[in-house]
Amino acid sequence: MAEEKVIVSGEKNGSHSSCRFGDMEADGNKKTPECISSVLPGWFSEFSSMWPGEAHSLKVEKILFQDKSQYQDVMVFQSSTYGKVLVLDGVIQCTERDECAYQEMITHLPLCSIPNPKKVLVIGGGDGGVLREVARHSSIEQIDICEIDAMVVDVSKQFFPDMAVGYEDPRVKLHIGDGVAFLKAVPEGTYDAVIVDSSDPIGPAQELFEKPFFEAVAKALRPGGVVCTQAESIWLHMHIIEDIVDVCRQVFKGSVNYAWTSVPTYPSGVIGFMLCSTEGPAVDFRHPVNILDDCDGKAKQSLKFYNSDIHSAAFCLPTFAKRAISAKIKHIN
Amino acid sequence: MAEEKVIVSGEKNGSHSSCRFGDMEADGNKKTPECISSVLPGWFSEFSSMWPGEAHSLKVEKILFQDKSQYQDVMVFQSSTYGKVLVLDGVIQCTERDECAYQEMITHLPLCSIPNPKKVLVIGGGDGGVLREVARHSSIEQIDICEIDAMVVDVSKQFFPDMAVGYEDPRVKLHIGDGVAFLKAVPEGTYDAVIVDSSDPIGPAQELFEKPFFEAVAKALRPGGVVCTQAESIWLHMHIIEDIVDVCRQVFKGSVNYAWTSVPTYPSGVIGFMLCSTEGPAVDFRHPVNILDDCDGKAKQSLKFYNSDIHSAAFCLPTFAKRAISAKIKHIN
Repeated sequence: MAEEKVIVSGEKNGSHSSCRFGDMEADGNKKTPECISSVLPGWFSEFSSMWPGEAHSLKVEKILFQDKSQYQDVMVFQSSTYGKVLVLDGVIQCTERDECAYQEMITHLPLCSIPNPKKVLVIGGGDGGVLREVARHSSIEQIDICEIDAMVVDVSKQFFPDMAVGYEDPRVKLHIGDGVAFLKAVPEGTYDAVIVDSSDPIGPAQELFEKPFFEAVAKALRPGGVVCTQAESIWLHMHIIEDIVDVCRQVFKGSVNYAWTSVPTYPSGVIGFMLCSTEGPAVDFRHPVNILDDCDGKAKQSLKFYNSDIHSAAFCLPTFAKRAISAKIKHIN
Repeated sequence: MAEEKVIVSGEKNGSHSSCRFGDMEADGNKKTPECISSVLPGWFSEFSSMWPGEAHSLKVEKILFQDKSQYQDVMVFQSSTYGKVLVLDGVIQCTERDECAYQEMITHLPLCSIPNPKKVLVIGGGDGGVLREVARHSSIEQIDICEIDAMVVDVSKQFFPDMAVGYEDPRVKLHIGDGVAFLKAVPEGTYDAVIVDSSDPIGPAQELFEKPFFEAVAKALRPGGVVCTQAESIWLHMHIIEDIVDVCRQVFKGSVNYAWTSVPTYPSGVIGFMLCSTEGPAVDFRHPVNILDDCDGKAKQSLKFYNSDIHSAAFCLPTFAKRAISAKIKHIN
């Protein structure tokens, strides 16, 4: 084994840890990003200034892909117990074993909360998993996706067929580009729902957590339309969440809610979602109006995680989180 | 730094990883268990055959205690972002930052499900956190605790005052000994509730997951009495959970339920609980009959995690877990 060095650049400069590509031969036959071999030989370890002082590690069977796109470092590896893993800028985006929780919840929390969603925009979500879930809703007529990084789409199609299957639906139209610019060009009131499947607010997704972005989303939604955005961990990022809730209360004049769910390979084991609606027909996110039929013949995979009970349960917050944001939450009953 | 070696004995022999105590000087002035320094210098990493292929790591500021009791390796360290951490046989038992979730849920799920609990037995739970939570219930008259390892009690009193505060309640009586033997000596029908705050079913807690133990618990409970036991992770141990549910359905003739909650420093970020009642007055665990007053003047700390909403939400399972055990769950409505 060549000399190894721990790379935790995120802790020094406020960015995520970088996966630099060294000349080491970790698995004996491939050049390996240093973040793989630098810590535990043969393990991937996830460090970030977003979760200082802790790191989750997965054992690597084989590195399947590594490259640097125009926007970020992209890596895919076969883990020993979580299936294939997609990593962007050193941060796990999804694993085959637990992606169901994230993809199903970020999609069905908004789409089961409004009757007959027809037009949906996905921002980010280049892996295709959200598309797969949107397609379960038989009322859907149009699924636009705007992903900034074509390499994420290509890698998903090559290595994650169970997520990229989402692209096969004829209602899907893929746009490669910046989500903010895409939204600005969208005619007012176009979508029933916008789903923002972003990475963390460090790196290419930073704009997706700021007020101008939420204003553009609100404008693109019909009255009583809904948005669901990835909104971090109550255990790690309560202050970021409070800021997002504040911005959303300013921008969205309907409901403003926060939900959360369990995803083992995300830091602290949970991820949250901001769910907001524009002024118009009332939306009570806590009580789904659509019951997803697990036996829908069109879906190629059964639901693994989502059901109506867990939909409602996702809005029940621990006391420490309620104290921080419940005064800012706006339910419609 | 002395030569380091990764110790993952759990993956080889089916036991948890062992923390052997070497002569290395990891922090420059103390002898350090190898599991601290062997993986990431200055970090604690948690490996086990119970969760192969993954490991969670916490950055260590200082090792505060390390010794081998009659039953297990006991270690306490100051982490950089999770407060002080208690580790038994290389596995994190609790951290100051997230112990609230586990202690509050394992205690209030059973005690809020029956009217006026008076006599409670805690098995394990030597850190005192469950005692602290039991004491919030003003109806309680007697709190027995049977912890096998006196060193866990002593270490908690020395390093975790916010948990060990539980021992200060005059209703608490501490018994150091084997929980199974203790239960056998208990007169039939003694307790309103038994809380089993155990470690994993490898090591000293193994018996606490087997049928004779559950039978002894049932005998010690009054008719319509309740038990809550630590019952692993739906993401990692669905087969263990199915076995526990099977055993509990044989032993408990009232309700048999499974709940879960988020605890970031437990493997996969979640932990589950088996909640059962004996034949007698019906118990509907999903709908608490006691509403815990967050402002109870007697409690020295406010509730941080538990509330009635999250109580009910804890029984909502993801679809994959429902498929595995819902046919065996027995609700009483």
